[in-house]
Amino acid sequence: MAKFLTNREENYSQWYNDLVIKADLAENSAVRGCMVIKPYGYAIWEKIQAELDRLFKATGHVNAYFPLFIPKSFFSREAAHVEGFAKECAVVTHYRLKNDEEGKGIIVDPAAKLEEELIIRPTSETIIWNSYKNWIQSYRDLPILINQWANVVRWEMRTRLFLRTTEFLWQEGHTAHATREEAVEETEKMINVYAGFAENSMALPVIKGSKSENERFAGALDTYAIEALMQDGKALQAGTSHFLGQNFAKAFDVQFTDRNGKLDYVWATSWGVSTRLMGAIIMGHGDNKGLVLPPKLAPIQVVIVPIYKNAEQLSALSEIASKIREELEQLGISVKYDDRDNNTPGWKFADYELKGVPVRLALGPRDLENRTIEVARRDTLTKEILPIDGIARRISGLLDEIQTNIYNKALNFRKENTFYLDSWSDFKDTINNKGGFIMAHWDGTVETEEKIKEETKATIRCIPFDTPEEEGRCIYSGRPSKRRVLFAVSY
Amino acid sequence: MAKFLTNREENYSQWYNDLVIKADLAENSAVRGCMVIKPYGYAIWEKIQAELDRLFKATGHVNAYFPLFIPKSFFSREAAHVEGFAKECAVVTHYRLKNDEEGKGIIVDPAAKLEEELIIRPTSETIIWNSYKNWIQSYRDLPILINQWANVVRWEMRTRLFLRTTEFLWQEGHTAHATREEAVEETEKMINVYAGFAENSMALPVIKGSKSENERFAGALDTYAIEALMQDGKALQAGTSHFLGQNFAKAFDVQFTDRNGKLDYVWATSWGVSTRLMGAIIMGHGDNKGLVLPPKLAPIQVVIVPIYKNAEQLSALSEIASKIREELEQLGISVKYDDRDNNTPGWKFADYELKGVPVRLALGPRDLENRTIEVARRDTLTKEILPIDGIARRISGLLDEIQTNIYNKALNFRKENTFYLDSWSDFKDTINNKGGFIMAHWDGTVETEEKIKEETKATIRCIPFDTPEEEGRCIYSGRPSKRRVLFAVSY
Repeated sequence: MAKFLTNREENYSQWYNDLVIKADLAENSAVRGCMVIKPYGYAIWEKIQAELDRLFKATGHVNAYFPLFIPKSFFSREAAHVEGFAKECAVVTHYRLKNDEEGKGIIVDPAAKLEEELIIRPTSETIIWNSYKNWIQSYRDLPILINQWANVVRWEMRTRLFLRTTEFLWQEGHTAHATREEAVEETEKMINVYAGFAENSMALPVIKGSKSENERFAGALDTYAIEALMQDGKALQAGTSHFLGQNFAKAFDVQFTDRNGKLDYVWATSWGVSTRLMGAIIMGHGDNKGLVLPPKLAPIQVVIVPIYKNAEQLSALSEIASKIREELEQLGISVKYDDRDNNTPGWKFADYELKGVPVRLALGPRDLENRTIEVARRDTLTKEILPIDGIARRISGLLDEIQTNIYNKALNFRKENTFYLDSWSDFKDTINNKGGFIMAHWDGTVETEEKIKEETKATIRCIPFDTPEEEGRCIYSGRPSKRRVLFAVSY
Repeated sequence: MAKFLTNREENYSQWYNDLVIKADLAENSAVRGCMVIKPYGYAIWEKIQAELDRLFKATGHVNAYFPLFIPKSFFSREAAHVEGFAKECAVVTHYRLKNDEEGKGIIVDPAAKLEEELIIRPTSETIIWNSYKNWIQSYRDLPILINQWANVVRWEMRTRLFLRTTEFLWQEGHTAHATREEAVEETEKMINVYAGFAENSMALPVIKGSKSENERFAGALDTYAIEALMQDGKALQAGTSHFLGQNFAKAFDVQFTDRNGKLDYVWATSWGVSTRLMGAIIMGHGDNKGLVLPPKLAPIQVVIVPIYKNAEQLSALSEIASKIREELEQLGISVKYDDRDNNTPGWKFADYELKGVPVRLALGPRDLENRTIEVARRDTLTKEILPIDGIARRISGLLDEIQTNIYNKALNFRKENTFYLDSWSDFKDTINNKGGFIMAHWDGTVETEEKIKEETKATIRCIPFDTPEEEGRCIYSGRPSKRRVLFAVSY
């Protein structure tokens, strides 16, 4: 199978598409722009969900569920919001089908037209704030710290599996606060939760920062983002957290009585990550043999493959394998024992490399004699023969080592591909020939940002939180600037 | 709060509606027929999901995700299926909004009309079998054992929170098999998984059986169901498992090569339960004080309420409470310590009764002296004073006892309200005055079934698997019958 994977160096985009399909992660469906997430891909998503859900709950959030449909009129209430989403909305106009009287088969029943059209949620601020209006009267009702796991729809013209699909799965947090300070603190807290998840679980280093006004969420006063660098030198926005100010509270008239008995509008945040994270994992770590999954998110952490010539050998190997499996499972490690007889060991090795399984154990007749086992690492593609005694603890340590190793590899890649530039010709040259993250001065105007985008396709990914103030001149306009911002071409 | 709950005996339907709202489980949204599932209700649903998901995986199933949208033409492929769902479909016809040029605000852009309308899935057989077509060539690709957690939409005219809503959450299993026998076995296996879940986790006894032809799923050859009896004498269908034969394989042309090299159509099943289960829990166990949650599905299993007059007392009580809490949590029990100072203990007691928390612990100054604690059971509303020493293990046993007790209570209620009847006047009398489950002979015709429904609103809930063959005469037509079937008025 693996041999059909296009080389990354030849055609990165084709490599990505091949890999998503051949590793059985997802496929395009009969509905334009909508994907089918296949069991192996979904199993990774379930791991992502479980860990994020744990992190959200550990920071005081609870889950709830709001309707899929948003009345069209709700949408118009927040001007910037409707402006941002109107062009990509799926609209429900009717609620019944019927048999055509002229024999044309099943048609939409014209008599079942809705009085007000319903939009499939592209994001849920409006329907949620319309509910919060009834939940909030006093400061005692605050904060509300709610998250929702849901599907959303944005009618994208150009779609790519996981990276940009018409329907996608995500979580969206929507919180309500009594003060601006508390809402800002929540916005920061959640971008930190996302960054921690990306680095600890996905093994991907990220840059945290604010979006420029141009790139902000439609309806936000401030958008924080985490940006990861993919192996082709493009940036991928992996999560956003928005400080919404009082915009939605005003749009839906959500006021509360504060501690001093004064009426005020409620302060809001929202934050989300989506199945796009799957794309980040694939492109952040994958190689020409296939996926390289971070052990913490791998549905199968260890695969055991027996190598045998006859039933007797298989039976002896299976006995040992099942003991090893049991020991591994007791350490909380997920194991697959693959004794299928319709594929060769070589085929299986290639297939599990394609699927990114972090550790592969192979057991052959010689291992029976020597009480040994072959241990192969997916990240380095190295193998060694180890004694079976104590193997479980050894593997457990190895999984941690792999997790750390692929993080460091990605971090080194990012270091090598982050450029502090001060001349426009270097900027263009770097973007056109190498890609990567460019740290450069910017004069702070939308005009300059747009011109840079026009000329190079690069955008301001974020204004990093942790860059020091320094005197400089805008890389494009030469006007004075106080700090570098992060430029890149992005997904 | 609790005092505003309508008495069950006065108006059962109003009691239900009151309870859903006042216990903070769900509420109606601004979108007709769509509910908002509030955090406390959603926490129960999460418990339901976690346990079902565990059971599905333990029986070899994996999760995946298919598109929300179904092209209209797919729907028409299976004749019975479209017939069953066409009248309640939400239809997407456009993919963009725009600013009206005549100043009427945001309108649907007439230029963005879809060539083929998309139906929001009311169930996913069609879109899934269209995918399976590409996944299945040989018997080696079978079985496919996939489950999906998703939202679905059926445009209901009369809706009730949890019981019948336009959008609801559910899981739908869709499996593909090489033989009829294997598919039938899967259909049976899953109705047994549902029955086990209902009885063990929800503490609700259920009757398993086949649906009559009239009540079958649109497109199925056979539908199995579990039926539970609610406290008002009505039946609630709590889960269904369908043997679909080769209907969908034929509609989507899904053929495979069997072991003998012969082409055949694939055999299918589908099975699902939904947020309707929330309704079953509420109506199966609730009383005039509120919810009675089965401990296995209660988000808060134990609440601890301190009773104090001053900060010094509170501090001493909190110290003990936090130790008890820790011990309980070590036993895997979820605990809430409620030391809020803006509500009286009495208010809190009533509120946790309303919310169905299985065990309430109250700690007062006298308990400090005596090293005791007051333990109140939600199911029996009884209290006792127990020594603090060894309390955690005691509570753990008590939770099991409550789980068993509410199951037995529901089972006794069902026994007392199951009637073996042989005369039509008794049948009518029982349905009109008592309700309950009626086991009666039926001649097997759709005609009789419909007449009984017309005259009494009762339907055949199922033909139970475990009723013995016996000679009898149809309760309505007097024609010969070989076994009793289960009649009831249903939700």
